[in-house]
Amino acid sequence: MKFASRMECLQDKALLNAMELTETEDMISFSAGFPSPETYPVEAIKKSFDQVLDREGKEALSYCSTSGYGKLREIIAQRMNDKFGLSYRTGEVVITSGSQQALDMSSMLFINKGDVVLFETPSYLGAVNALRAYEAELVALPTDGEGLILDALQKALDQYGDRVKLIYVIPDFQNPTGRSWSRSRRKAFVEFISAYEIPVIEDAAYSELSFEDKLEKPLSYYDKKGQVVYVGTFSKTFCPGLRVAWLCARENLMEKYLILKNAADLSSSSIAQRQMAYYLMHNDLDAHIKWITGLYKERRDCMMAVIDREFPKEAHYVIPKGGLFIWLELPENKDSRELLRRAMAEKVAFIPGGSFYPSSVKNNELRLNFSNLSHEDIEKGMTILGRLTRAYLAE
Amino acid sequence: MKFASRMECLQDKALLNAMELTETEDMISFSAGFPSPETYPVEAIKKSFDQVLDREGKEALSYCSTSGYGKLREIIAQRMNDKFGLSYRTGEVVITSGSQQALDMSSMLFINKGDVVLFETPSYLGAVNALRAYEAELVALPTDGEGLILDALQKALDQYGDRVKLIYVIPDFQNPTGRSWSRSRRKAFVEFISAYEIPVIEDAAYSELSFEDKLEKPLSYYDKKGQVVYVGTFSKTFCPGLRVAWLCARENLMEKYLILKNAADLSSSSIAQRQMAYYLMHNDLDAHIKWITGLYKERRDCMMAVIDREFPKEAHYVIPKGGLFIWLELPENKDSRELLRRAMAEKVAFIPGGSFYPSSVKNNELRLNFSNLSHEDIEKGMTILGRLTRAYLAE
Repeated sequence: MKFASRMECLQDKALLNAMELTETEDMISFSAGFPSPETYPVEAIKKSFDQVLDREGKEALSYCSTSGYGKLREIIAQRMNDKFGLSYRTGEVVITSGSQQALDMSSMLFINKGDVVLFETPSYLGAVNALRAYEAELVALPTDGEGLILDALQKALDQYGDRVKLIYVIPDFQNPTGRSWSRSRRKAFVEFISAYEIPVIEDAAYSELSFEDKLEKPLSYYDKKGQVVYVGTFSKTFCPGLRVAWLCARENLMEKYLILKNAADLSSSSIAQRQMAYYLMHNDLDAHIKWITGLYKERRDCMMAVIDREFPKEAHYVIPKGGLFIWLELPENKDSRELLRRAMAEKVAFIPGGSFYPSSVKNNELRLNFSNLSHEDIEKGMTILGRLTRAYLAE
Repeated sequence: MKFASRMECLQDKALLNAMELTETEDMISFSAGFPSPETYPVEAIKKSFDQVLDREGKEALSYCSTSGYGKLREIIAQRMNDKFGLSYRTGEVVITSGSQQALDMSSMLFINKGDVVLFETPSYLGAVNALRAYEAELVALPTDGEGLILDALQKALDQYGDRVKLIYVIPDFQNPTGRSWSRSRRKAFVEFISAYEIPVIEDAAYSELSFEDKLEKPLSYYDKKGQVVYVGTFSKTFCPGLRVAWLCARENLMEKYLILKNAADLSSSSIAQRQMAYYLMHNDLDAHIKWITGLYKERRDCMMAVIDREFPKEAHYVIPKGGLFIWLELPENKDSRELLRRAMAEKVAFIPGGSFYPSSVKNNELRLNFSNLSHEDIEKGMTILGRLTRAYLAE
């Protein structure tokens, strides 16, 4: 049997493997990109399902319209507009099955085989996979403490010209580094890119998980042209098991996204969307998020304390002000895959940094998830990892 | 902004429009491809959600593994093996978000731009859309009362040679015609195609909706080579709003499907799958299906009675022995789109047959759904349509 040529681009199973690593029960795993299951509001969700099934059972179990459940789209638009100063209308929101599907659909909409996509690096593996499935050429752009470096962006645009069809970025508490773009870089980026007809995917998966009171304005806020496609999700602020996320785009794009959504899976789950809408109407999601971020901040602090105490000075990190991850950098001649091999032997897992580079791999970094573990496990696992790192760096 | 070239193949919004037609409240619509919402077991589903959330709430709200919830996959494999004499193992089943996603993933796995896909025609619009999104060249093959015509298949294989990368068929109670392949044609087809290295997608969406006691064996039953990919769904036998379907393929293919599933949406909803598994463990789905098919058979009989009474003799149909549809054929010089225009003016809708041909359009047919309407609405709507058809054919 012959397979499509895309399959040759999709041999990297790092994310699949990372997921599987966390499934061993006796493993202390810093691999996951999950929120903490103890934060899932099980009782409120149960009540929402019951109410939805009692009140509108038949509709909830039927096909939904392709764009998604109207009331949920309305609430999402309103919520984003209130929280981030955006100006999306209900008709500019489509519900997707996880934000991964929004990335898949965006790749599908913009990418022909061989087209160039510009990426900040390191970046989210799932987006890399979605784009590889459409045989994009992924071009890595460097970042500094403030975000994507505009000089590098300019150079890439000069070099690749019309071949550049898409830019993918995560401006808030980025996966895997935990870093955020500064306000001035956001403004400067949007102003710079508005001179081009290139769409930008703003992945806002972590945007609401700030450990400080202030939320930074999204790129979409500065976008006057309808060039930025905004991708949001309830997976990190509520729970991932419902697969309810959304994509916002201006009307001219939305029509095309709906054609693709229809081809991909007809529509997302009606009952999951109605449950979500019911929850949002009868509960305070922002209060829930405040509680979650308080919890994650304590876990971050715990992890930083163990790093500061147990790891050699040569292991660097930048304090993440939100999100789920600490990004640890070893000296350049060290390989985090070797560290992982040794850690696995002592039942500790993480994701080696090389997995987050779509090209020109760097191997001296590691991603450490803190959201999904107890203080006890963080203490224990990070102490082991610190000891192993000390030994490895001393070699 | 530039879009991928696939978007030029995806301008046909017939399915989207058909869905929207059914959303007008005062319309008697024979357009839908839906089961009847009154058959959805709302109370049992509510109980299943409650039990799952009580027993395993955290797991149910977390990400699921890419292949799907193990227990559900095991039950599905067992159920298909018992019911259809198949021999799938749990590891050969992947859960998809509706069978549409299984078609999307299959297109993704096998199709490069310009590859040829062989189709029986008329056929399911959703599959046409999924394949068009990957820029397949769709080649229509004729069918007779027993299924795909093998001489025509041979000719197409001779003509297109190595360009043929996939064959898509619906052997049971086909959408849109309601017809089924004979046993001898099934055997002959599988034997014939086993001489080639071309995968076959067997869409079994309607297979369990038989109005007779006997279920025909699927193509997969006769397949010794692992060439047939079997696509099943709970959308028609249970409810579509959960988006739980499945795809079965032998191990060498399954590995590739998992990579694509991961790129498409990471995994399907954990809670929806666990709810489904709970239902299957504590309820008798086959008894439920027996009740549904009894109901649909009565509606089919009602529709046939009105056709026989109210329509002109020149309108032909073949009695469907299962499924959701009657396929009505007008004289060749008549256009069902014109009939639709007149019917819409009297608040009656259906889908014109031309929408079900990926190429070489025929316009003298119409698809009539009987599953989703009361006897009263079938009587009323079909009587109007009969009158309009008589008048139109008399012109």
